[in-house]
Amino acid sequence: MAVKPIGDRVLIKIKESEDKTAGGIIIPQTAQEKTQTGIVIAVGTDADAIKVKVGDEVMYDKYAGTQVKIEGVEHLIVKMSDILAVLE
Amino acid sequence: MAVKPIGDRVLIKIKESEDKTAGGIIIPQTAQEKTQTGIVIAVGTDADAIKVKVGDEVMYDKYAGTQVKIEGVEHLIVKMSDILAVLE
Amino acid sequence: MAVKPIGDRVLIKIKESEDKTAGGIIIPQTAQEKTQTGIVIAVGTDADAIKVKVGDEVMYDKYAGTQVKIEGVEHLIVKMSDILAVLE
Amino acid sequence: MAVKPIGDRVLIKIKESEDKTAGGIIIPQTAQEKTQTGIVIAVGTDADAIKVKVGDEVMYDKYAGTQVKIEGVEHLIVKMSDILAVLE
Amino acid sequence: MAVKPIGDRVLIKIKESEDKTAGGIIIPQTAQEKTQTGIVIAVGTDADAIKVKVGDEVMYDKYAGTQVKIEGVEHLIVKMSDILAVLE
Amino acid sequence: MAVKPIGDRVLIKIKESEDKTAGGIIIPQTAQEKTQTGIVIAVGTDADAIKVKVGDEVMYDKYAGTQVKIEGVEHLIVKMSDILAVLE
Amino acid sequence: MAVKPIGDRVLIKIKESEDKTAGGIIIPQTAQEKTQTGIVIAVGTDADAIKVKVGDEVMYDKYAGTQVKIEGVEHLIVKMSDILAVLE
Repeated sequence: MAVKPIGDRVLIKIKESEDKTAGGIIIPQTAQEKTQTGIVIAVGTDADAIKVKVGDEVMYDKYAGTQVKIEGVEHLIVKMSDILAVLE
Repeated sequence: MAVKPIGDRVLIKIKESEDKTAGGIIIPQTAQEKTQTGIVIAVGTDADAIKVKVGDEVMYDKYAGTQVKIEGVEHLIVKMSDILAVLE
Repeated sequence: MAVKPIGDRVLIKIKESEDKTAGGIIIPQTAQEKTQTGIVIAVGTDADAIKVKVGDEVMYDKYAGTQVKIEGVEHLIVKMSDILAVLE
Repeated sequence: MAVKPIGDRVLIKIKESEDKTAGGIIIPQTAQEKTQTGIVIAVGTDADAIKVKVGDEVMYDKYAGTQVKIEGVEHLIVKMSDILAVLE
Repeated sequence: MAVKPIGDRVLIKIKESEDKTAGGIIIPQTAQEKTQTGIVIAVGTDADAIKVKVGDEVMYDKYAGTQVKIEGVEHLIVKMSDILAVLE
Repeated sequence: MAVKPIGDRVLIKIKESEDKTAGGIIIPQTAQEKTQTGIVIAVGTDADAIKVKVGDEVMYDKYAGTQVKIEGVEHLIVKMSDILAVLE
Repeated sequence: MAVKPIGDRVLIKIKESEDKTAGGIIIPQTAQEKTQTGIVIAVGTDADAIKVKVGDEVMYDKYAGTQVKIEGVEHLIVKMSDILAVLE
């Protein structure tokens, strides 16, 4: 059983602040700020629009997407156009 | 007698919170929050735009569509673009 | 003498709440709510855009269109894009 | 001397409430409501867009257009897209 | 020395209320209302878009354009799409 | 060293009110009003869109562009579509 | 490890006010104003849209983009359309 995004949407598992330092990039933030990075869990059906792949760590627009909890873990479904960058 | 959506619209039977756990996906929510999943009952006439089929369990945008009761049961007519994902 | 809609517009005779049950579809509503179904009386000149025909019972978007009384009966002129579904 | 509408615009002579009954269509209204029908006096230069002809009685969107008095008589210049229907 | 409008813009010399009667069209107005007619002084460089010529008396949308005084006389630079009609 | 506008943008040196009379065009204004004319200093890279050249005196939309001081002098970077006219 | 912008986005390292004078361009500003120049660190994957290169000093729209700190240094991810000019 899985959540399969439609079209140009991407399912992202939101990263907690403490594990965001892999690779040396640290985004210091106050406790009130929501982290804006996550791991791509599934991509939509529109192959032309999708520019990321499952497993990519991505940054996304702070106000983008729709939140959903899957087995208790916070996820986000965002449009490809709301993904700003890949962390490589 | 049936409700036949027009164009890129889809008729969805809104799922109640308690039966949303089939397949292991649980979306915990407060009583005030409306569930955002449902079952596709009928699809519109625009075959190119329609990416779901009757019987699919889908997630949709919280503020999307027009509510309608059919034989006492809450349904929603949404545009295809407001359907976020299929639950498989 | 008749009202001939232009382009992608459709002339609808608004159904009263009490006669909306033909075919088993009942949309319970409070007295304050306007019904959202009607019968197509005339269609516009844009044959490509028009997806309904005279006599169809249709559901339409609650805030759509322009109201007009014809011989004392409430009608609505709506764009095709505001018609959600046909009741068959 | 004449007012020649440009492009997809149409010049309409606004009908007074009392002479709107020709053909049996009566739009009862309170004194405060502006009538929404008129007679086409001149059409614009964009032949593809113009779907009415001089002399047609038309209904138009209540908030459409720009009012202008010509020799003391109230007229309206509206875009073709604001004309809802022809009364035949 | 001249003001040469760019693209689909037109330079109009705003007519005072008292000289607007040439040709029999009178637009009675209160003193507070700005007249909406003028004479075309120069047209832009986009020949396809420009539908008026220098010397035409035109009506334009009340809230259109940018006002500019040239040698003390009030002018307006408007887009072609804000010109409603030519007075012939 | 220079500021090179990108795409359809133009760099303008804002003219002070007192030197705007070259050529006989005077735009009287209260002290509070910002002048809306200037000299083109550099043009963007999109040759198709750019309709002015370096040295042109231009009028531009009052609320257009981004202000920047270069060596203490007020400049403006505007899009070509915000330039209304050339003063020749 | 790096931040790779997607599509028509550009990663910019925001310049502090004091080092903005290289090349003679000084943008005097009050302490409250954020500088609007920076150095391009990485460009997106859409080669047609990208008009700047890594190392360029650029000016960008004051309200553009999403701020992100990388190893404690303030960066900005902006769309190409929000970059106004290159400082050469």
